[in-house]
Amino acid sequence: MDRNPLLVVGSVALDSIKTPYGQVEKVVGGSAVFFSAAACAMSPVAAIGVVGEDYPMEKLENLKERGVDLTEIKQIAGSSFFWSGEYSENFESRETLVTELGVFEEFNPLIPQRLTDSKCLFLGNIHPTVQLNVLNQMHEPQLVVCDTMNYWIDQNKEELLKLLQTVDILMINDSEIRELTGVSNLLKASRIVQSMGPESVVVKKGEHGAIFFGMDWSFAVPGLLLDGVIDPTGAGDSFAGGFLGYLSGKQVFSHEHYRKAMVYGTVMGSFAVESFSIDRLEMISKQDIFDRVSELKKLTSFE
Amino acid sequence: MDRNPLLVVGSVALDSIKTPYGQVEKVVGGSAVFFSAAACAMSPVAAIGVVGEDYPMEKLENLKERGVDLTEIKQIAGSSFFWSGEYSENFESRETLVTELGVFEEFNPLIPQRLTDSKCLFLGNIHPTVQLNVLNQMHEPQLVVCDTMNYWIDQNKEELLKLLQTVDILMINDSEIRELTGVSNLLKASRIVQSMGPESVVVKKGEHGAIFFGMDWSFAVPGLLLDGVIDPTGAGDSFAGGFLGYLSGKQVFSHEHYRKAMVYGTVMGSFAVESFSIDRLEMISKQDIFDRVSELKKLTSFE
Repeated sequence: MDRNPLLVVGSVALDSIKTPYGQVEKVVGGSAVFFSAAACAMSPVAAIGVVGEDYPMEKLENLKERGVDLTEIKQIAGSSFFWSGEYSENFESRETLVTELGVFEEFNPLIPQRLTDSKCLFLGNIHPTVQLNVLNQMHEPQLVVCDTMNYWIDQNKEELLKLLQTVDILMINDSEIRELTGVSNLLKASRIVQSMGPESVVVKKGEHGAIFFGMDWSFAVPGLLLDGVIDPTGAGDSFAGGFLGYLSGKQVFSHEHYRKAMVYGTVMGSFAVESFSIDRLEMISKQDIFDRVSELKKLTSFE
Repeated sequence: MDRNPLLVVGSVALDSIKTPYGQVEKVVGGSAVFFSAAACAMSPVAAIGVVGEDYPMEKLENLKERGVDLTEIKQIAGSSFFWSGEYSENFESRETLVTELGVFEEFNPLIPQRLTDSKCLFLGNIHPTVQLNVLNQMHEPQLVVCDTMNYWIDQNKEELLKLLQTVDILMINDSEIRELTGVSNLLKASRIVQSMGPESVVVKKGEHGAIFFGMDWSFAVPGLLLDGVIDPTGAGDSFAGGFLGYLSGKQVFSHEHYRKAMVYGTVMGSFAVESFSIDRLEMISKQDIFDRVSELKKLTSFE
């Protein structure tokens, strides 16, 4: 394995999910799991997380075989993070039925020496103070991307703003950036976020695609047209995994590479929603990925 | 003027509109007006419509100078179509306050001989039977595009389905195609529409852009990133004007030209929303259009 894998810190969860296309009980999920499953096709990955004694670690074996270092997913006494939710007809909304933090509540990881030299870091959607604690343990990372959510914007805005001063890219969905900035127009909202610290902002818009806002330039990519969406859970983290997996694989952070990273993010998000859990992501080949990149190119090109 | 201008039939209205950025009273609007204002930059246009004695025809003089044949906008005894609406903060919804059809209620135009040879026809959002009556008067048009709205889908579905058997492209927004087909997934919904008659479907998604669904191919274009949206009224008709104006100017209906037409539609829609009424559309130069096409190219290109 590469000495400098792409590092991700986030939740490792059990999800019970009902969608119009089926229902699953306590399948593996969480931001670190979806991210790793998407990123490992393009870069070695190391995941940092915590689970309880109830976690079916054997379900992550395939990730290990695909190059994900799971050593730092610590299994400790207690229950794993459990989330249960139900999606409405057409995936227009989702209702959270249960959230049990379990061992995740006290999660505040120590990064082992061998991983502190990673060049690319993804701070999954966890408490902003924990995100900052992780970041502070790193030696000179070159690209730090963080996610967040409405809950932290509401409850821990001060800590979140402190974190934002130190990250390179905030990756967030459209409703969240509107809540964070109080501004509806995405171009204006992204400028406000940039004034808080991050040089760039990635706004995820679900089926409508995503937009990268850099300094004085932008890149927009539409969603792929899918006729078999099964479960949108994990799409955002898989997008992040595709985005950072691509960049970590290249180790070049130019405008052109950011554009391509957005494309890989879109492609990995599109695979994630075609099954429950990481089932589809675990099956894809490099050729599947290239085919879908080429499909996205055809979908968007004009002379 | 070209003997075969792009022909549009639709409403010619007076609009009173309130948005978070201002308020206007009885300004010129309606589908035929926005369409013509957008299309005339790229093709000669002839508009078919009806107004009452109260209509300020002098406000359309500029369109005439820009190559729009207004001869067939008939001024007759009675009141003009009047619409009044108010947009919510952030343009998330709009409320219709007043709709007075006036002389538009009896609108069922006779197309003069000199215009029946037009190759490109836009059937703006009016009663589907009137749309069909217009289409039946044409000699071998090469490209017929129609718009519709929720009201006709609810109230006159049978007539609408009859119309759809005879048009080449249905141009419709995302909520409308979902209502028409009962299917939320846009790819599946477009296939259903194609089975109703049109070879292609254009789905407009407002700020999220638009998608062209052809037979076995698609093209998606995101919205331009605008920081000065003043009034979204007429954006869809201006999109249609840009789309058909481009195609009528080229008189070639290849996949590549459809892609480019989607780009011109997006660009003209983006100008339309930057002012009330057609104020912004009336001011733009060919260079303004090319600049924005090039901006959209930069926004979406990747290697």
